[in-house]
Amino acid sequence: MHNNTGRIVGLLIVIVIGFGLHSIAVSENYLPEKWWPSEWGADDQRGALNRLTPAKVMEAAALIRSGTIYDMSRVFEEDMPLFNLTPAARKYTIVVPGGPSWGPLGENRLTWNEDYICGHLSQNGTQIDSLAHMATVLGEPGDLNEIRYYNGISHAEIAGGRGFSKLGTEQISPIFTRGILIDIAGLKGRMLERGEEISVADIDAALQRQDMSQNDIRPGDALFYNTGWGTLWKKDNDKFNSGTPGLSIAAGDWVISEQVVLVGTDNWAVEAIPNPDPKWFAPNHQKFLVENGIFIMENLDFSALLEAEVYEFAFAFGALPLKGATGSPGRPFAIN
Amino acid sequence: MHNNTGRIVGLLIVIVIGFGLHSIAVSENYLPEKWWPSEWGADDQRGALNRLTPAKVMEAAALIRSGTIYDMSRVFEEDMPLFNLTPAARKYTIVVPGGPSWGPLGENRLTWNEDYICGHLSQNGTQIDSLAHMATVLGEPGDLNEIRYYNGISHAEIAGGRGFSKLGTEQISPIFTRGILIDIAGLKGRMLERGEEISVADIDAALQRQDMSQNDIRPGDALFYNTGWGTLWKKDNDKFNSGTPGLSIAAGDWVISEQVVLVGTDNWAVEAIPNPDPKWFAPNHQKFLVENGIFIMENLDFSALLEAEVYEFAFAFGALPLKGATGSPGRPFAIN
Amino acid sequence: MHNNTGRIVGLLIVIVIGFGLHSIAVSENYLPEKWWPSEWGADDQRGALNRLTPAKVMEAAALIRSGTIYDMSRVFEEDMPLFNLTPAARKYTIVVPGGPSWGPLGENRLTWNEDYICGHLSQNGTQIDSLAHMATVLGEPGDLNEIRYYNGISHAEIAGGRGFSKLGTEQISPIFTRGILIDIAGLKGRMLERGEEISVADIDAALQRQDMSQNDIRPGDALFYNTGWGTLWKKDNDKFNSGTPGLSIAAGDWVISEQVVLVGTDNWAVEAIPNPDPKWFAPNHQKFLVENGIFIMENLDFSALLEAEVYEFAFAFGALPLKGATGSPGRPFAIN
Amino acid sequence: MHNNTGRIVGLLIVIVIGFGLHSIAVSENYLPEKWWPSEWGADDQRGALNRLTPAKVMEAAALIRSGTIYDMSRVFEEDMPLFNLTPAARKYTIVVPGGPSWGPLGENRLTWNEDYICGHLSQNGTQIDSLAHMATVLGEPGDLNEIRYYNGISHAEIAGGRGFSKLGTEQISPIFTRGILIDIAGLKGRMLERGEEISVADIDAALQRQDMSQNDIRPGDALFYNTGWGTLWKKDNDKFNSGTPGLSIAAGDWVISEQVVLVGTDNWAVEAIPNPDPKWFAPNHQKFLVENGIFIMENLDFSALLEAEVYEFAFAFGALPLKGATGSPGRPFAIN
Repeated sequence: MHNNTGRIVGLLIVIVIGFGLHSIAVSENYLPEKWWPSEWGADDQRGALNRLTPAKVMEAAALIRSGTIYDMSRVFEEDMPLFNLTPAARKYTIVVPGGPSWGPLGENRLTWNEDYICGHLSQNGTQIDSLAHMATVLGEPGDLNEIRYYNGISHAEIAGGRGFSKLGTEQISPIFTRGILIDIAGLKGRMLERGEEISVADIDAALQRQDMSQNDIRPGDALFYNTGWGTLWKKDNDKFNSGTPGLSIAAGDWVISEQVVLVGTDNWAVEAIPNPDPKWFAPNHQKFLVENGIFIMENLDFSALLEAEVYEFAFAFGALPLKGATGSPGRPFAIN
Repeated sequence: MHNNTGRIVGLLIVIVIGFGLHSIAVSENYLPEKWWPSEWGADDQRGALNRLTPAKVMEAAALIRSGTIYDMSRVFEEDMPLFNLTPAARKYTIVVPGGPSWGPLGENRLTWNEDYICGHLSQNGTQIDSLAHMATVLGEPGDLNEIRYYNGISHAEIAGGRGFSKLGTEQISPIFTRGILIDIAGLKGRMLERGEEISVADIDAALQRQDMSQNDIRPGDALFYNTGWGTLWKKDNDKFNSGTPGLSIAAGDWVISEQVVLVGTDNWAVEAIPNPDPKWFAPNHQKFLVENGIFIMENLDFSALLEAEVYEFAFAFGALPLKGATGSPGRPFAIN
Repeated sequence: MHNNTGRIVGLLIVIVIGFGLHSIAVSENYLPEKWWPSEWGADDQRGALNRLTPAKVMEAAALIRSGTIYDMSRVFEEDMPLFNLTPAARKYTIVVPGGPSWGPLGENRLTWNEDYICGHLSQNGTQIDSLAHMATVLGEPGDLNEIRYYNGISHAEIAGGRGFSKLGTEQISPIFTRGILIDIAGLKGRMLERGEEISVADIDAALQRQDMSQNDIRPGDALFYNTGWGTLWKKDNDKFNSGTPGLSIAAGDWVISEQVVLVGTDNWAVEAIPNPDPKWFAPNHQKFLVENGIFIMENLDFSALLEAEVYEFAFAFGALPLKGATGSPGRPFAIN
Repeated sequence: MHNNTGRIVGLLIVIVIGFGLHSIAVSENYLPEKWWPSEWGADDQRGALNRLTPAKVMEAAALIRSGTIYDMSRVFEEDMPLFNLTPAARKYTIVVPGGPSWGPLGENRLTWNEDYICGHLSQNGTQIDSLAHMATVLGEPGDLNEIRYYNGISHAEIAGGRGFSKLGTEQISPIFTRGILIDIAGLKGRMLERGEEISVADIDAALQRQDMSQNDIRPGDALFYNTGWGTLWKKDNDKFNSGTPGLSIAAGDWVISEQVVLVGTDNWAVEAIPNPDPKWFAPNHQKFLVENGIFIMENLDFSALLEAEVYEFAFAFGALPLKGATGSPGRPFAIN
């Protein structure tokens, strides 16, 4: 359902649900309307993290029944896929100095190593985006006052070259909440293709296949969906980097309406890239991060959960509190 | 109790407790005796992580009663204390390129930022040591075959300049276990001093103050202790870097006997630096990592737990799986 | 001569000399007037490098009479002074991976090392500034179209996060020209102090002490002056970083009038920092780089030249052609 | 002439010329014999730089007749070829923070930029190798005492993780000497191929084509040869990285016999890679750097010299004095 009807249905859902929701109607006259102040106040920097209450923690803890941990993270290594759609490819380097670095010291003859790590760490591998990652250019090129982030915060106000003064990753407090995984590739019986969109109907069908429904998604959940694209990881990095399958704009609007805390997937976008409509570039990124303060996690590894057919779990994740950063590499995990 | 009697008492405790324990008697004739194979087999790379069973996860989950999350991590920022005891100080840099990095793209005029982060990331800030961090030099200088790590693995076998081929941080699976915090500074009513040792008796007294005893420490626990040294963080970085208070050798042996998965503290060593006996350099690091496979976490922030007087909790931590690294920066947190 | 009279005299010199000169009168009504197009055309990116003609090369070659080389560069090392007036100190790191990095390969059992170097390389140590290093903010904060570089080029036009598209260091072609060193510290018999200004009269007196006069400075020369501040290098890095002695504004105007290709000194500014008049920040940097396309070299080592009392020489320097960079570290040298 | 006869002829030349020469006969019984102490003494770290006398500087200066400068350097940019024969590709990154980095400051409203540069800088692009770059493994793997560099210096003695304590790039003093370019590709009328060797006869023929002979090569010269492989630069980086044409072992021995200060070429090896005889890996690197202290420059751009048919010139180069580094990026240039 890649057509306009699907989008309009999605938008109607959005409009009906309505409250506390900053999604903007997709029209010929895009840009989005003013999306601030946020529902959590004009000074808020935490976005959907405000949905993480003690009750939500208890809801997650109650899902721990077998004591099994499922790793959801890819290993960081120099030959992992490194985003290269932009002209200057991202980098990741680890250097371990010396042979070994220091020592031996003491009569106990201790010696030790330390490593030096460099790269676009916060935007490579398994990671989360902070609300400083993306913005919408409302004004003329070169006018930093009209590059607007979550809650209308401007680039001129927060950018400075050595980390953002607001919205950086240090705002992302530790997350322990209910997690839901929707297996779209399982529904289709195949990996989705580059540029292929996932509709709200696909989500409904996939949930049904898991004996769930839209009613099983609750505010504050961490919502994950599997496209199968992650099976390309280190198997075909060029294809992995070339684009993504992902949520249609309407499905993105549905996610927003569900008031989740974050959306995560097994590739590097929460939408189809390239977008089937060439006039949009990553509109779900924009809606989630900029307009609604919903966090995005990318390059997750669902294989352990899928093998165990676990779709509901406690989700634990501590983003590195990198002051002023646009995101954080991470080691999320599930427990049931 | 910085004297030999204290040490001997500690050693007796060690010797009595005994089994599954690779601690080496401290003597005039140090070096340690051969400490391999490990109790988990000659091929093991996971050390004390083997103690993390599903039952341990359930034990932790049962501690979640109020749904409160306590952040245990320091913010990563360029003006945090950066280890500088060695001649070449560690570094940490974050650079956010551009104004902004890319875009605007699409009619939705999306723009985005990414950051470039460099440094001794795995050994600065709140972090965990992997078992590749330290080794003992058993042979002549320059003989890599006799630089020995956990389980007897040699430097020659695993070192290569771009990350270790064994024992790297990717071996540290996600941790969800019972956590115990022992407030030594609370017991003393003051911050401990540089080079000041914590004895087993101190631990007993601090546990008693918390209505606990040694019996409350169980195999697989994550064991934390507060020295107050962390209050220097960003207040007096030079003093913070100048040394540490910490566990005496006997207290270190006691920790080993308790079969914990990891030991964590609010400074950068799990012992007194400088050691009161100048012939030892960081012997607890050596005993924990090299000889017993017990992990070490450093530069933790206990302030939220201390304020709430929470000493027993579920502990959640996902180390970044940095292939071949000597450690990982982290965002550990507690829940109760 | 730190008073207005001195400045006015300097300005009169500037006004009389006049032609080919974009220096702007210092007034209460600063900002500078429009300084573009440059005398080398509206498309020029090379600035004063246009003064380097084959005749100038021959003039330099004729100065080589003894075959002696004088190194003018500081060693790059982690404990050199690293600029820290701004909140985030510059960094320089060298890591040599492994033990060694690769090999042995072949029956010839060759092994090799490579290093990983990180930092604000182009702005630390002995270096040259490119014309992308500095600009004047003519408009409102956040308006990138009115941040103007040499030849009026705007930040909006050339900035992009991965190097500037114009004015980068790759524009700095190899330099072989006549060099002149003026020993101001020798004249004064002492190191100049932080914030101390060098007047045109000081320059005259120092030249006279060297049996030279203003007539000995010629278009296309590389002009160097010694303040003695460089003697603090690695002796007192904190003081070295705390400020600089340097050319007064009037002396800066005189330099411009002499039509040199570059100005170099033994500290990190070509002026007094802090400026005696607190309303100016680094006005000579601005006049040289932004308004007149004259290059700046910093942290030079004049000790070999001074010891030999060599004040006129062939000057050889190849800046690293780092595409889009704001400068380059370097290894300049003199020959006579 | 890729056969053994050619090699034997070359070796005979070597043996006849003989004095001051540490080249080791290639035999079935390779490893090389003990190559130390060097002809410049047991403590020497400068190798062939000892050949750069004032007389040599004067000889070079006398070649400056037209005042023309020929750039010999490639631009450093992220899309240049980055060595990738080893599993972990080299990296080069430039990041320009902010928009812009700092300011505006003062009533003069000055603002400035600085960049952050990371990578295997000393071994990418146009560069020179220091004598710490390569060594021969004489002993058992893991025995750092028998990894031997120039003058027999051992890895155990000088390696330490943050730069070598001897033989680093800071030992490479500024170079101003006579340069000779031999155009092998011009002789052949084509780019040489991957793995193709250049014989001494090829050198003779190419010199003759330039109205020169072996007699025109003199001690202390900087010797360059053009293979045409550099025409692949940024045109076909994969092919450029895949291997090299270069000097045969016999031609390498001839170079040594000529007592040059350095050998430079338009690709990344001074020999054929892969070597036609699979048992050798980069034997010329080994002979030049390790056994004879002759420096190597790589990835040079000869196009300006070739177009002007300039084969003899003054050569100027200042390596960055990076303490302890294995090499330096550079901006060499020729003058005639």
